[in-house]
Amino acid sequence: MTRDATRNRLLEHGTRLILEQGYNHTGILAVLQAAAVPKGSFYHYFKTKEEFGLAVLDAYFAAHMANVERFFADQTRSPLARLRGCFEFYVEHFRSLEWRDGCLLGNMSQELADQNPTFRARLQELLGRWCRRVEECLEEARRAGELRPGLDSRLLAEFCVNSWEGAILRMKASKNVEPLLTFLSFFFDVLLHHG
Amino acid sequence: MTRDATRNRLLEHGTRLILEQGYNHTGILAVLQAAAVPKGSFYHYFKTKEEFGLAVLDAYFAAHMANVERFFADQTRSPLARLRGCFEFYVEHFRSLEWRDGCLLGNMSQELADQNPTFRARLQELLGRWCRRVEECLEEARRAGELRPGLDSRLLAEFCVNSWEGAILRMKASKNVEPLLTFLSFFFDVLLHHG
Repeated sequence: MTRDATRNRLLEHGTRLILEQGYNHTGILAVLQAAAVPKGSFYHYFKTKEEFGLAVLDAYFAAHMANVERFFADQTRSPLARLRGCFEFYVEHFRSLEWRDGCLLGNMSQELADQNPTFRARLQELLGRWCRRVEECLEEARRAGELRPGLDSRLLAEFCVNSWEGAILRMKASKNVEPLLTFLSFFFDVLLHHG
Repeated sequence: MTRDATRNRLLEHGTRLILEQGYNHTGILAVLQAAAVPKGSFYHYFKTKEEFGLAVLDAYFAAHMANVERFFADQTRSPLARLRGCFEFYVEHFRSLEWRDGCLLGNMSQELADQNPTFRARLQELLGRWCRRVEECLEEARRAGELRPGLDSRLLAEFCVNSWEGAILRMKASKNVEPLLTFLSFFFDVLLHHG
């Protein structure tokens, strides 16, 4: 394998293991074994486990934002339909996982935000970037006349993303779709709904 | 110490350590040391670490519901004011913790729901009990004419609790009050607001 291919394999298996077991419980050795990469070569790619964990988080976020942009770019749908479509994509994603794993941004916020200031700062930055992209979509919705008047787009985007993360948390406990559908229904059909 | 006093000390220190470090990272020995209880006596009180973790969760939930009932019992306030007052109490609680720890129900859902079916079932049961109590308060609000018409109280209670848990998750990453206040503002001032 090329250097980049090996690095990507480590990130891919690291993402899966960290989603399944958490960051603290995922040992470097387990990642190397899962990725079928020889012991001892890890430190050719990453200086520390923390550097690896941050690279996993960045790769997860990049893939997430690529999904978001794929939906947001669809000019055949209204801005709110694009936003809702993106969440509906994740509902099907979590269904295929039988409501396991959840979102790495939420999981790491829970596990690491109090323990590790570097992870905390990165998580807050990435969650903020996602929120700002949702805010831009909501501003488009406002210009298209889709948004109930008087709502602050920035705070609405924060409420949207945070409530979605809460719905995912509850989905992990309920092991069914209800928390995600309840989020979609209240956010899109009630909160944003005109009069 | 009496038998009950020792058991309570173990639960108290266990709760604190599990909130700070997570369940998997909290060893029995660390709990015994923190509680100044002699090694070897743990198994007089709990058969397994899992039994201890479930007892910690139950004790946390009992204390949480006692807080909820304290606010819900205040007949001098309207039903929605009671519900909001309870969340505002937790805002001050988390402020005093400098936005650390979060809610044990959310933390354990994130950490354990995929790993341990016994914890998952207990968490879903306890979250459901909290939701039903919120639903009863919302039904009181409906009878008092405080609730915007056409909202399903059961699903609204679920959305309320899940979104609150998401706000707490984000609070851990942001280390400020904004996610909690944004939740309060959108849930009470926008979503439930008449006309």
